[in-house]
Amino acid sequence: MNVTLEQLFTEARTQNGYLDTPVSDQTLRELYDVLKWGPTSANASPARFVFVRSVEAKAKLVACVGPGNVAKVQAAPVTAIIGMDMEFHEKLPQLFPHADARSWFVGNQPMIEATAFRNSSLQGAYLILAARALGLGAGPMSGFDAAKVDAAFWAGTAVKTNFICALGHGDPSKVFPRSPRLSFDEACRLA
Amino acid sequence: MNVTLEQLFTEARTQNGYLDTPVSDQTLRELYDVLKWGPTSANASPARFVFVRSVEAKAKLVACVGPGNVAKVQAAPVTAIIGMDMEFHEKLPQLFPHADARSWFVGNQPMIEATAFRNSSLQGAYLILAARALGLGAGPMSGFDAAKVDAAFWAGTAVKTNFICALGHGDPSKVFPRSPRLSFDEACRLA
Repeated sequence: MNVTLEQLFTEARTQNGYLDTPVSDQTLRELYDVLKWGPTSANASPARFVFVRSVEAKAKLVACVGPGNVAKVQAAPVTAIIGMDMEFHEKLPQLFPHADARSWFVGNQPMIEATAFRNSSLQGAYLILAARALGLGAGPMSGFDAAKVDAAFWAGTAVKTNFICALGHGDPSKVFPRSPRLSFDEACRLA
Repeated sequence: MNVTLEQLFTEARTQNGYLDTPVSDQTLRELYDVLKWGPTSANASPARFVFVRSVEAKAKLVACVGPGNVAKVQAAPVTAIIGMDMEFHEKLPQLFPHADARSWFVGNQPMIEATAFRNSSLQGAYLILAARALGLGAGPMSGFDAAKVDAAFWAGTAVKTNFICALGHGDPSKVFPRSPRLSFDEACRLA
């Protein structure tokens, strides 16, 4: 499937409003079937996703986000909650069958936490770019009460919320002016 | 610029060996000029990058990585060190000029740490996918002594190492068999 670098990066913009075009369950399944191939450490794939679409689930999520994000969640046809399974290593016999990768993590809580946070963040970035590749706009947000989101959406599991990301067909009229980036020499060094 | 979803995700593979094709400084500058457009929280862009290419720098990095990653760093024409600037908020007057975003972070060390780790990880994922878009292969690694890499490459700065990623023209004969991924129903929920 052809996409462009402009669509993914150089002309892509964070969305703040959405057209009245629905996002089908089929599109969300396609989205996962693309992003799941992005690499993670030991193929651990710690991210878990809730796609919030219904009136009830949206109201639950709106009650957890900061004032600046209420309208964004309300306006988006879907908001993805990107969680991280703090027991991801229990799935390593399935995901990394050629070695006992589970044993690298058991009992090493700092390594479990760093691996879950780092790799579920990578997978969140894969979600943003896969969404753009499929013609959706994305609006990632980290302004919310994580404990409230955990209680509302991950109760009874070992999953904790990493960040949330609105998804839908973006409304170009709602995009903010583009902010500057650091130059190569400010951010990078050749060694 | 045209790319394909196969090239980025569905047929892309983590590289374990590299062809004897150099990666120019110009390509590394292009790589940054693509990945820098990926979204971060408050446009904070906390990632900092060292592109390790010289014999001397490579020897310094090899001395910091785990035994399983020595050959990978030695074989790759470039290994990127993805760092996170723990004082990223000092650049917010430049990067987010329309609000006093710096004040949201000053004195809130847990928020600084979470924002730096989450968003430099997102930017690391943007690097992996931007590399693939430009025809490079990527080999991300987290098996290294972070304190040693910090001392060797970020001394005198507030930057800490997040992960490292080999870059080069991949050798298809060195790719491992593909490992399975979680199904949609194992990783996702519609709500």
